[in-house]
Amino acid sequence: MSVIKPSLAKGTRDFSPVEMVKRNFIYDTIKTVFRKYGYAEIQTPSFENLSTLTGKYGDEGDKLIFKILNSGEFLKDPKKKSFDFAGEDNSNKLITLISEKALRYDLTVPFARYVVMHQNDITFPFKRFQVQPVWRADRPQKGRYREFYQCDVDVVGSESLLNEAEFILIYNEALSKLGLKDFSIKINNRKILSGIAEIIGKPDLIIDMTVAIDKLDKIGLEGVSKELLERGFTETDLEKLRPVILLEGTNEEKLASLKEVLAQSETGLKGITEIEQVFDYVESLTAYGLPLTAKLELDITLARGLNYYTGCIFEVKTNEVAMGSIGGGGRYDDLTGMFGLKDLTGVGVSFGADRIYDVLEELNLFPVSTEVGTKVLISNFDAEAEKYALPIVQQFRNAGISAELYPSSAKLKKQMAYADAKNIPYVILIGGDEIASGALTLKDMQSGEQKKLTVLAILELLK
Amino acid sequence: MSVIKPSLAKGTRDFSPVEMVKRNFIYDTIKTVFRKYGYAEIQTPSFENLSTLTGKYGDEGDKLIFKILNSGEFLKDPKKKSFDFAGEDNSNKLITLISEKALRYDLTVPFARYVVMHQNDITFPFKRFQVQPVWRADRPQKGRYREFYQCDVDVVGSESLLNEAEFILIYNEALSKLGLKDFSIKINNRKILSGIAEIIGKPDLIIDMTVAIDKLDKIGLEGVSKELLERGFTETDLEKLRPVILLEGTNEEKLASLKEVLAQSETGLKGITEIEQVFDYVESLTAYGLPLTAKLELDITLARGLNYYTGCIFEVKTNEVAMGSIGGGGRYDDLTGMFGLKDLTGVGVSFGADRIYDVLEELNLFPVSTEVGTKVLISNFDAEAEKYALPIVQQFRNAGISAELYPSSAKLKKQMAYADAKNIPYVILIGGDEIASGALTLKDMQSGEQKKLTVLAILELLK
Repeated sequence: MSVIKPSLAKGTRDFSPVEMVKRNFIYDTIKTVFRKYGYAEIQTPSFENLSTLTGKYGDEGDKLIFKILNSGEFLKDPKKKSFDFAGEDNSNKLITLISEKALRYDLTVPFARYVVMHQNDITFPFKRFQVQPVWRADRPQKGRYREFYQCDVDVVGSESLLNEAEFILIYNEALSKLGLKDFSIKINNRKILSGIAEIIGKPDLIIDMTVAIDKLDKIGLEGVSKELLERGFTETDLEKLRPVILLEGTNEEKLASLKEVLAQSETGLKGITEIEQVFDYVESLTAYGLPLTAKLELDITLARGLNYYTGCIFEVKTNEVAMGSIGGGGRYDDLTGMFGLKDLTGVGVSFGADRIYDVLEELNLFPVSTEVGTKVLISNFDAEAEKYALPIVQQFRNAGISAELYPSSAKLKKQMAYADAKNIPYVILIGGDEIASGALTLKDMQSGEQKKLTVLAILELLK
Repeated sequence: MSVIKPSLAKGTRDFSPVEMVKRNFIYDTIKTVFRKYGYAEIQTPSFENLSTLTGKYGDEGDKLIFKILNSGEFLKDPKKKSFDFAGEDNSNKLITLISEKALRYDLTVPFARYVVMHQNDITFPFKRFQVQPVWRADRPQKGRYREFYQCDVDVVGSESLLNEAEFILIYNEALSKLGLKDFSIKINNRKILSGIAEIIGKPDLIIDMTVAIDKLDKIGLEGVSKELLERGFTETDLEKLRPVILLEGTNEEKLASLKEVLAQSETGLKGITEIEQVFDYVESLTAYGLPLTAKLELDITLARGLNYYTGCIFEVKTNEVAMGSIGGGGRYDDLTGMFGLKDLTGVGVSFGADRIYDVLEELNLFPVSTEVGTKVLISNFDAEAEKYALPIVQQFRNAGISAELYPSSAKLKKQMAYADAKNIPYVILIGGDEIASGALTLKDMQSGEQKKLTVLAILELLK
């Protein structure tokens, strides 16, 4: 076997012990909140039949799906003996011959498949969360990987806007627990956007309108106006649109203005009522408890893949660090239609765990406890000390304390370096004196302080 | 988009909420024990460069590796315009043209790659665990899937037999915590097997010997004898082998007999000393605490992929249910040699989580708490009751209790059925009386008992 210098596949990452503790801190925090609101975890397989995935993500998305080669004799048709590669059509034809499954591209389509396949076992409303990796054949770049985790939480089979309100509380609680202090949960409603397009008299251009105004943050009003003109709007339309786009003030003030603007649009008014109902729910839910940490902002420029959402739309941003959205979602009315189950409404949001990781890292918000695995290392001086230490290390473990005995009598310097590298906060030194007296030397690795204590005293201290 | 009836890819599984809670119970229990012994989690990517994986699992293994199609224009050589499929060689050649990465087949090879790539950042001994799915293009059958989890725990860079002893304690603690009461940890040593082959005068036939005697359980002494004769052993050899294979008595008695048999083999005696040392460590470690739940058995018929292991070999079986091994592992001296890092010794074991799941299910050992997600459901009688309930459901959550308010005022029967289906142990009923008096009706879903209690009293009860 020739020796090759190993490398990672392009766009993938290893996670070291320190990184894993931090990642688990994020996932565990989010999952705990999901569970508190009655959501239960499911998992779906890493690969699906190709037919389950293709055609769900648009042409660009389809190209980014990782296909898996059929195993064994992968030509299904034994009469086929050669293949002509020329042209992309032929490439596609070849794929159908040699591949029938693919890695999941997101958690939404597999969830839809799950709901349809298990519809007879599911009691609706079905509240599920799913935290699993997805794979995309994107060109890797800073912050964009070919394998990354999605954290999705959805409820299907309930029209109630209480669900929308609870997602706001879920975002608020999870992000607060992660240590964020200044973040915004933005909310919009597809029906308000439809109403605006209707009032202008261009209902068919709703997608063009929202794609353009969604860019307000990036390209400013002038840029948006230019794009709207290019996309088929007139100067007259723009005059009607501008005040809506530039809507300012509190949520109540914005809603009041919108009610006037949308007075003639039934759909638009429905969207406003929905937003108001969500705000009411949030207020009632938090009536006895703490107010929201998050700023809850009505933002009618928010669109996020509009052709998918049918009601409320959410997006979450931190105001402490320059970073894209760290979460988003909304209500959809036809999740499972693609698999033949019609009229099942749902609403869901997701957390951008990788971005949240970067935010917490930048703000130094990972708690110190996330850096600690083993709590105490017992040094190994010689065979006699080792023998003495063996039942002691086990006593710590029996008390629920993560403990190690250095596995050989290496130089003390090396053993201390080991404790340092693993961020172990305490080291117990056992030599002849300690064995004779029963008082062990406990070294606090942070302060450097040393104390002589009995095993029981140390146990009490570390518990 | 044509509607297709969705199905799972062959050999894969969905995990429902109930299954996930049970699976998490197993993983969390095992991971907690790993951490207590100083092991830290890492993760590696789901796919690796094909060159990292091929040639590591033998020809049969290589065929079971799932290859991923290159994305985009997958023909690397633009001059190549057609391909002749005839013959398997050509299939293999085609693979090199259209695939350069593959799903991981186990956690061992990616771990070896990890250690080599990060050797300058790692402080040895490196104690890591890894719990991730692996994929194999096996023919699916009962209990065998194409995607399944492995739970591996290894230490590299330490020769100490303390590690072996601690793996025995790790198995003992994790499986006891999972509720198993009668299980055996079998131990053997490659050096003892080498010694036996040496004494018989057939050191080159060690693999044939161990493959045959490993089957003692299944085919009995007669079957083993027949196979040994077929594999090049003589009747004279068998006379020497039989007493060794049939070794009975306590571990001490077996070791005493083996010492006589292997008196002329330096390697064999080394193996015995290693086993004795491991037993000594286990005894010292447990000197002050509870004795092992597990039966620790020297079993010299144990081989498990012998060409890989160089020292101790482990296998774990439950005696309560007929089931293959639920764990195994051993010491290896050349994990990372395949990637050019020589002489790094390591030892590791793994847990067969899927089989453990089946065992716990069969013995009804999953704790009741694993069936509970949401602890209390507040019924939704009408708009007034909903309004009254909103701050209350949030009070429960603020107290760390998983709670739901049914999201609409559906028929009570439907709401109760929802609580039943989700195994929610308590339902709070709020009607006009309850709102007037402030005493809510708490229904225990198991006993059917109903009590009138204030919110605070219910909070105390459920905490």
